[in-house]
Amino acid sequence: MTQNIYDNASFFAGYSALPRSVQGLAGAPEWPSLQAMLPDLRGRRVVDLGCGFGWFCRFAREAGAAGVLGIDVSENMLARAREMTSDPAIVYRQADLEGLDLPEGTFDLVYSSLTLHYLRRLPALIAQVHQALVPQGRFVFSVEHPIMTAPSQQGWRTEGGRQVWPVDRYLDEGPRTTDWLAKGVVKQHRTMATYLNQLLQQGFALLRVEEWAPTDDQIAEHPEWASERERPPFLLVSARR
Amino acid sequence: MTQNIYDNASFFAGYSALPRSVQGLAGAPEWPSLQAMLPDLRGRRVVDLGCGFGWFCRFAREAGAAGVLGIDVSENMLARAREMTSDPAIVYRQADLEGLDLPEGTFDLVYSSLTLHYLRRLPALIAQVHQALVPQGRFVFSVEHPIMTAPSQQGWRTEGGRQVWPVDRYLDEGPRTTDWLAKGVVKQHRTMATYLNQLLQQGFALLRVEEWAPTDDQIAEHPEWASERERPPFLLVSARR
Repeated sequence: MTQNIYDNASFFAGYSALPRSVQGLAGAPEWPSLQAMLPDLRGRRVVDLGCGFGWFCRFAREAGAAGVLGIDVSENMLARAREMTSDPAIVYRQADLEGLDLPEGTFDLVYSSLTLHYLRRLPALIAQVHQALVPQGRFVFSVEHPIMTAPSQQGWRTEGGRQVWPVDRYLDEGPRTTDWLAKGVVKQHRTMATYLNQLLQQGFALLRVEEWAPTDDQIAEHPEWASERERPPFLLVSARR
Repeated sequence: MTQNIYDNASFFAGYSALPRSVQGLAGAPEWPSLQAMLPDLRGRRVVDLGCGFGWFCRFAREAGAAGVLGIDVSENMLARAREMTSDPAIVYRQADLEGLDLPEGTFDLVYSSLTLHYLRRLPALIAQVHQALVPQGRFVFSVEHPIMTAPSQQGWRTEGGRQVWPVDRYLDEGPRTTDWLAKGVVKQHRTMATYLNQLLQQGFALLRVEEWAPTDDQIAEHPEWASERERPPFLLVSARR
């Protein structure tokens, strides 16, 4: 089973204090780009893999989705998600995404934000997503960018007055351990090609790929984000069954 | 017009001495991966954009192509390519790829090896390629990998006994000047997302993306290539009209 760091008490406390936890989607700077990749949600059936506190599930309902299934491995997060809505068209379910079992040809959109880089085996999940979508259904997700996850020692260095991000082990896929909100958080590094080819091999058509970094307007508001343009923190992908 | 560094005498002398110039495709370590992306060439009409000494054009004919058009900006390279064949089904043409004009719906394969990163404007070329292909025709190409072209100071550093490749300016697309075989060689950095989205926007379906690095067998034969697995030197793409 995937490491469930979200049920580690100190990680959960740290995560709960992040802008994206407190403010929801508006606190996630990549949200406008991810939102632009979404289909019209009116009347659609939606799944959110790694739904956390349920911000996207509630957004999808407000945008007109007929029903939303939020799945997460963390009971802590689901408990809080359930507290935040009484909408009967949002259903939360605890499950490990590595053994996910979704009904066939049922959903119009499968969404996942910053979750898939925790999974050790991605092809099985992508196959599940593919069979769970209706024809023409969409799979829209974000993950930490492979340039971000590759290095054996992730972090910025200063060189000649510039911030640089030293890359090594890019082709060496597998676990990387970082200290982020807690010690020993394990994420899986895979290359950009692996993400894209696994989608293509399962029969998805790629619609759009985005290497997200903050816009000039966002940097004007948050000058501390400027270095994120030196290397992209997130990879966003939109695909069609 | 794109910088034509291949007609610079000292660059040309250096390039002519590279294994890929002397031995042809067998001297290009990424060739087996690129070859695996090619369709069956028997009876097909093929264009090679940036054909250089014509190694691929001659390969395509040996693999059964009905006709091959090799295009290059460098008269030096074309002169040598013409010396190496008397096959009337191979035609060489001098042209700047930034103003390319190909006949409509004519080719089964457009191929390009390590050339497109010299072009300042890629969308116009991709549109030309798209219209020049028959339906279901393929576009297979390699370029320097964006992780390779991004940095303001391209090169390896040593850190804790490991080779690392410091990345900066990844999101800042445009010219990068390096000293490679000659001083002041200008290549255009663009992100992985830009390469892929420009293909998608012109109507191509992506078939496969490869971030090439040497295999274990290749490293056993050439231990000096080992560092190339720390960050991929080349991006290989296969797309279908």
